[in-house]
Amino acid sequence: MAKRRAKRATAVIPAHRPVEFGTPPGTLLAPPGALSTTVGVICYGEAGIEEFAVADPSELTPLREKPSVLWVDVHGLGDEDFIKQIGDVFGLHDLALEDVLNLHQRAKIEYYDDHYFIVVHAVDYKETLVVEQLSLFLGSNYVITFQPRKIHCLDPLRERLRKRKDKIYLNGSDFLAYSILDAVIDGYFPVLEKYGEIIEDAEERIVAKPTPESLAGIHDVRRELLSLRRIMWPLRDALNSLYRDETNLITSETLPYLRDCHDHAVRIIDLLEIYRELGADLQDIYLSSVSNRINEVMKVLTIITTIFIPLSFIASVYGMNFDHMPELRKESGYFIVLGVMGFIGLALLFYFWKRGWLTKDDFDPKNH
Amino acid sequence: MAKRRAKRATAVIPAHRPVEFGTPPGTLLAPPGALSTTVGVICYGEAGIEEFAVADPSELTPLREKPSVLWVDVHGLGDEDFIKQIGDVFGLHDLALEDVLNLHQRAKIEYYDDHYFIVVHAVDYKETLVVEQLSLFLGSNYVITFQPRKIHCLDPLRERLRKRKDKIYLNGSDFLAYSILDAVIDGYFPVLEKYGEIIEDAEERIVAKPTPESLAGIHDVRRELLSLRRIMWPLRDALNSLYRDETNLITSETLPYLRDCHDHAVRIIDLLEIYRELGADLQDIYLSSVSNRINEVMKVLTIITTIFIPLSFIASVYGMNFDHMPELRKESGYFIVLGVMGFIGLALLFYFWKRGWLTKDDFDPKNH
Amino acid sequence: MAKRRAKRATAVIPAHRPVEFGTPPGTLLAPPGALSTTVGVICYGEAGIEEFAVADPSELTPLREKPSVLWVDVHGLGDEDFIKQIGDVFGLHDLALEDVLNLHQRAKIEYYDDHYFIVVHAVDYKETLVVEQLSLFLGSNYVITFQPRKIHCLDPLRERLRKRKDKIYLNGSDFLAYSILDAVIDGYFPVLEKYGEIIEDAEERIVAKPTPESLAGIHDVRRELLSLRRIMWPLRDALNSLYRDETNLITSETLPYLRDCHDHAVRIIDLLEIYRELGADLQDIYLSSVSNRINEVMKVLTIITTIFIPLSFIASVYGMNFDHMPELRKESGYFIVLGVMGFIGLALLFYFWKRGWLTKDDFDPKNH
Amino acid sequence: MAKRRAKRATAVIPAHRPVEFGTPPGTLLAPPGALSTTVGVICYGEAGIEEFAVADPSELTPLREKPSVLWVDVHGLGDEDFIKQIGDVFGLHDLALEDVLNLHQRAKIEYYDDHYFIVVHAVDYKETLVVEQLSLFLGSNYVITFQPRKIHCLDPLRERLRKRKDKIYLNGSDFLAYSILDAVIDGYFPVLEKYGEIIEDAEERIVAKPTPESLAGIHDVRRELLSLRRIMWPLRDALNSLYRDETNLITSETLPYLRDCHDHAVRIIDLLEIYRELGADLQDIYLSSVSNRINEVMKVLTIITTIFIPLSFIASVYGMNFDHMPELRKESGYFIVLGVMGFIGLALLFYFWKRGWLTKDDFDPKNH
Amino acid sequence: MAKRRAKRATAVIPAHRPVEFGTPPGTLLAPPGALSTTVGVICYGEAGIEEFAVADPSELTPLREKPSVLWVDVHGLGDEDFIKQIGDVFGLHDLALEDVLNLHQRAKIEYYDDHYFIVVHAVDYKETLVVEQLSLFLGSNYVITFQPRKIHCLDPLRERLRKRKDKIYLNGSDFLAYSILDAVIDGYFPVLEKYGEIIEDAEERIVAKPTPESLAGIHDVRRELLSLRRIMWPLRDALNSLYRDETNLITSETLPYLRDCHDHAVRIIDLLEIYRELGADLQDIYLSSVSNRINEVMKVLTIITTIFIPLSFIASVYGMNFDHMPELRKESGYFIVLGVMGFIGLALLFYFWKRGWLTKDDFDPKNH
Repeated sequence: MAKRRAKRATAVIPAHRPVEFGTPPGTLLAPPGALSTTVGVICYGEAGIEEFAVADPSELTPLREKPSVLWVDVHGLGDEDFIKQIGDVFGLHDLALEDVLNLHQRAKIEYYDDHYFIVVHAVDYKETLVVEQLSLFLGSNYVITFQPRKIHCLDPLRERLRKRKDKIYLNGSDFLAYSILDAVIDGYFPVLEKYGEIIEDAEERIVAKPTPESLAGIHDVRRELLSLRRIMWPLRDALNSLYRDETNLITSETLPYLRDCHDHAVRIIDLLEIYRELGADLQDIYLSSVSNRINEVMKVLTIITTIFIPLSFIASVYGMNFDHMPELRKESGYFIVLGVMGFIGLALLFYFWKRGWLTKDDFDPKNH
Repeated sequence: MAKRRAKRATAVIPAHRPVEFGTPPGTLLAPPGALSTTVGVICYGEAGIEEFAVADPSELTPLREKPSVLWVDVHGLGDEDFIKQIGDVFGLHDLALEDVLNLHQRAKIEYYDDHYFIVVHAVDYKETLVVEQLSLFLGSNYVITFQPRKIHCLDPLRERLRKRKDKIYLNGSDFLAYSILDAVIDGYFPVLEKYGEIIEDAEERIVAKPTPESLAGIHDVRRELLSLRRIMWPLRDALNSLYRDETNLITSETLPYLRDCHDHAVRIIDLLEIYRELGADLQDIYLSSVSNRINEVMKVLTIITTIFIPLSFIASVYGMNFDHMPELRKESGYFIVLGVMGFIGLALLFYFWKRGWLTKDDFDPKNH
Repeated sequence: MAKRRAKRATAVIPAHRPVEFGTPPGTLLAPPGALSTTVGVICYGEAGIEEFAVADPSELTPLREKPSVLWVDVHGLGDEDFIKQIGDVFGLHDLALEDVLNLHQRAKIEYYDDHYFIVVHAVDYKETLVVEQLSLFLGSNYVITFQPRKIHCLDPLRERLRKRKDKIYLNGSDFLAYSILDAVIDGYFPVLEKYGEIIEDAEERIVAKPTPESLAGIHDVRRELLSLRRIMWPLRDALNSLYRDETNLITSETLPYLRDCHDHAVRIIDLLEIYRELGADLQDIYLSSVSNRINEVMKVLTIITTIFIPLSFIASVYGMNFDHMPELRKESGYFIVLGVMGFIGLALLFYFWKRGWLTKDDFDPKNH
Repeated sequence: MAKRRAKRATAVIPAHRPVEFGTPPGTLLAPPGALSTTVGVICYGEAGIEEFAVADPSELTPLREKPSVLWVDVHGLGDEDFIKQIGDVFGLHDLALEDVLNLHQRAKIEYYDDHYFIVVHAVDYKETLVVEQLSLFLGSNYVITFQPRKIHCLDPLRERLRKRKDKIYLNGSDFLAYSILDAVIDGYFPVLEKYGEIIEDAEERIVAKPTPESLAGIHDVRRELLSLRRIMWPLRDALNSLYRDETNLITSETLPYLRDCHDHAVRIIDLLEIYRELGADLQDIYLSSVSNRINEVMKVLTIITTIFIPLSFIASVYGMNFDHMPELRKESGYFIVLGVMGFIGLALLFYFWKRGWLTKDDFDPKNH
Repeated sequence: MAKRRAKRATAVIPAHRPVEFGTPPGTLLAPPGALSTTVGVICYGEAGIEEFAVADPSELTPLREKPSVLWVDVHGLGDEDFIKQIGDVFGLHDLALEDVLNLHQRAKIEYYDDHYFIVVHAVDYKETLVVEQLSLFLGSNYVITFQPRKIHCLDPLRERLRKRKDKIYLNGSDFLAYSILDAVIDGYFPVLEKYGEIIEDAEERIVAKPTPESLAGIHDVRRELLSLRRIMWPLRDALNSLYRDETNLITSETLPYLRDCHDHAVRIIDLLEIYRELGADLQDIYLSSVSNRINEVMKVLTIITTIFIPLSFIASVYGMNFDHMPELRKESGYFIVLGVMGFIGLALLFYFWKRGWLTKDDFDPKNH
């Protein structure tokens, strides 16, 4: 079990080293095991909507000049040169590109001369928590997204763009960026729902039968919630600063939507805190459940011992081999002693019942 | 029991998903199981007071122009089109209307061009905690309230309006909005009183007999208090910002009343914190009660065992079948041994009594 | 015992409902069980000092105009009309008067056009903690105090006024208000001293013999300290804001005194925190004391059992009735077996002594 | 032991009442048990350095006018009139002088018209923690210090002054005040070192043998650290405000030194926090040590009982007196039964060894 | 073991006294056991790069005037005069130099007239945590570093300088200082990785077999993490203030790099907090593991006792020596009693199995 837990922990806790130790800052290195890079472009505006794949970054240069909104969607971070060239086309800062390739960033929103650099994390729950880092650049008329692996919660967005009637289609790049953030954040709710179910299951199991495994399960859940919280807090702060930042990149039309987005993030944190408290509660219930069981086992032991030890003593007294023990010679001696033993046994049972140590449940073997 | 607890938890913890995943923001969708929508209007001012039901939102348009104060009270959120049309008449923002229909908002106060949007939660205690979301729009001469289900604490308000002499009747829409908030907040006190009783009962029960069920009961209460706290904190902050916000919507006459309202919210939070501490205390009392019982059971076991084991040993010594055991042949051997046993037993009892392990209570079967 | 504790709790935790539910704000209702109202007036200044009782509020109107300082001291809140009329004479706000009558306010300092409204709590310790709410209005030349029941810590103030030489006599109404606050706050120190003694007693008792009652006692004390803290925190904040507020009501002469008063409040909070930590410590000591006792009981049980069970086994072996058991026939068999038993018993005692399970204390029945 | 602890607590926790209840503020009352007052003066500057005792405060008046720096060092607070007269000479505020005599002040720095009033606490460790309050007035050309008892950490300062070359001698009164504060704060380090040793000792003792006394010892240390922390936090804040305050009393030359002093205070708080955490750790170690011992005792009991109870049962079966028990008549019956018993005993031992309940340590009596 | 732990603690907790008590501030004293001082200089710029050792501080004076960037790298703090002379050449403040020699500083960044004084800590993990203090002065065209012992994470920097193409070479002294800070901070990641492994190992060990030693190990780790946290918090604050400080010393080119550096520090603190939580989790797992074992031991004891005690009682009844015991005379009496005993034994086993006290695991000796 320890093995499995260690694996889960690894899945949740980021690897620690950002890049190879001693590498100069701003060096671009594809993360280990990265998928190969493919680039899809969606270009929309008054002239309609176009979708196509890009094989060479230089194809992007003419698109920058168009009045339409440009969404460059990069999948897989395996090709560091390709990414470097995209950076050159849009004038992205080296440190930002390094952060795109380094997959253990905190959520953040940084402003560089003419564009925002935003890092958020999309989550999913498939047997265990899956976290994907989404890096996003927002310029005056473009949005560039970098996904190490495909993030599914962005699919409905493309559909809405293609319908050409949705608010996204009718607004600028800032609204597209908001819509992406909103999709990512709304993706937290089903995951939290999942944790809600896990906690409820765990509670039923623990009350029914507390095992060390069930405790370990709670610790896993709390750990993953801790990890989610670590992701959400900086995201909330970043959204807050984005909402307050007044640059030309965010139109006043989009601002109430960002406020709404920030509101959702706050609600997610609220839920996370509640789940963490519920997890802590489970631990209390577990411990008190175990100590109740110890108490119960002790009571059984004490009752049995307390009843039979005096009786055995009486029996062993009359098992002594003294020549002169008058009772032994009596005809009815044996039966009198049996009667006395019976009386003592019943009296003790009565005493325990009065003290509340014996309840009907104790005789019901199904009750554990 | 686990089932019942899970149900309570569900009642308290909000469902997690705001709307169907992938839905564009601002989409209006009636919440599942919503009641059908009915709209009542109260219109009062110098010209007197009128009350009537509205079947079509267009009937509201002429009322907007009147100099009187207009209270549009919407019950049931089942008819999303109706609500959309009300929004159109009063120029309400799509995101605000979406929040009206999404029943798991945090308390908040948002300002849109010419109106406030306020979300608060009314609470009631019927077997378990019942939370209802109340959405409120406050414009220069109107107040619109949306209640998913009838909130009873607003009834006295209507009565006071009908009397035509109350401060509400004589003031503008801001005072009406304050009065609604005040009624909702004052509705927390009886609920807290109820929790006070529950905690006192739980304490008596736990001290009398600590069972795992009683612990589970404490956890339920603490969970519901946690949930109330989650509702109250943002409400307090929102009231604070409303009190400080200086727009034309709130007259200086109403401001001291809002301060009073904020004061009540702070007092409720104070009480919640005290109850939560009392709940935590109960847990300590429970645990120490259980560990005292283990101690007590152990003492009984130890006393019985310690007294009879040496005695049994003596008896079994004289039960040995050696040919040559001089004591066995003595006439008075048996009685001397019985005497020695009696002496040892009394000596041990005396020792335990001196150590404080034996008290009068131990002989009183009623004492558990 | 549970009963008694519940009562104490009720004494400490405020009743929850401010006024009857559904009552309009600003309604004056005497609190249940209020004493009948009597009003005493002290009027002092260059023209000397006058003291008299007031039967009708209208008698106060001419006093307002005088250049002297006026202290209206209202005892008992049973007569709501009387209080309403006093409010009218001095132009006090309805909400403030409502708060005077509602006995579960937080400490606060509010400024209304030309007067301060201050709520503080005087404490006393008579068997249990007694909290009295003192409401105070400070105007340019008057101070009005409302005491539900007589607050004894104000008595020395009147004495000092009558001496005509004290700083109070020589300064204005602001210094009188400060002196009242100072007297109330200094009244916390003897109460804290009392709690210090209670905690020291409890510690001695717990170390001597931990009983569930002693734990319950600690919980009571912690609860009362919690309650005091709930009273002191807002008071400190209020004093801080009063000290910073620069209205004409507080002269620069009085300001250093208010700073001193704030300083005392901070010191009281410091002490409260220390006592709360000591209370928490006691709980730890209690729990470790109980678990030490369990350990000790276990050791006694284990030593007795471990020594006698092997011996009894040997005895029972030689109690078997086999026809052919050569040892039984030996002349010295019995004595050899007794010797072996003695050796085993001593060897085990030695082993336990070496492990540190047996100490001199275990043989001292006075040591529990 | 309880007695001793109560004494320590009293040494650490301040008496609670500042002055006799009901005394007007600003009244000067010597603290109970105060030493008689003696005043030493050091006067230094371009004209050299003079040291002499002062018997009458009026002797100080001409010194105030001199261009040199004047250090009035008051020992013992027994003579309240003397102190009052010093206050009159230098124009010190009554409230400040009251605080000088009241020995349970928090550290603070207050500014009065033309001088600072500073309260700090010097600490020393002699068997138990000793705290002395040092009150200091800093004027443009004088420093007045009040020490209830001689504070030894100021001795090196006088030595440095007498050498006439040290920075103190060459700078003004502000640098003298800084030097005094610095000496007091640096005096915390040896005390903390002492606590470090105490904690290390306690840890070794607890791991070796956890006794209730060792736990009580930890509680004492934690209590004293709590008390130190209560002293240091306000001191740090006061130093911070002094460093930021820009009055003419502190020259820009002295400012970096004050920053350094503040730095030291922060480092002391850091160490205090670490020690408090170590103290809490010790408590955990203690508790887990006790519960390990219970576990160990239980295992011994269980092993012994589990081995001998079945064996005793077998023996008692063959001790039954039935007429017809074929085994009893067999020649080798006794030896077969002994063999079976031996086998069962060894098998159980093997089982326990396999489960890890028996280790080499269990046979080593030195291991406890 | 206690010895070893005490040693580790000493390695982590700083010695407490900054300098000998009573020493005037600004006195330079080499720390005890300091290495002898050697000074290496790297001087680079348009004119190329030069590296040489310096034997006399006066050799540095001409270098200050050159337009190139000067990196004075001081190893070993044993020669206080040498260091004093370097301070004189560059005009460094006495207090800063004192802090260089006092090895228990908090991380800090202080601004003196024309240079920054920065203290950071480099960490390494060799069996235990190793912390080295790095002091750094940043002037307009120079950087001076003081290392008590060689800090290895600076080696790659020199390599990068020698390549003459790296950003360091092409920028000024501010970028050099940034690069040093960055190298130091990035050195935390491998150490944290190490702690991650230690915690994972500890978890596996505890779940497998909880021993007091493993708990002590967790305490050591938590203590070292506490110590790292104590180092990182002030560093993060210092970096934040450096990033915000706008003096001429930091060019706008370097600012985004400092932001990146601050970002890394925040990420390290995040990881530290997670590890501390994981450490706390381990403690919970340990305690619940121990209490589970107690429970398990108790169950074995109870089952064995409960089964055999009634059987032994029956056997001892028929071991009594009454003359008249009819069962004893029956031919089949013995076998009937054996049968009854067998039935009782099996019935009890069945009862325990139904209650869930007996599982397959209990019969598997490998399962502990």
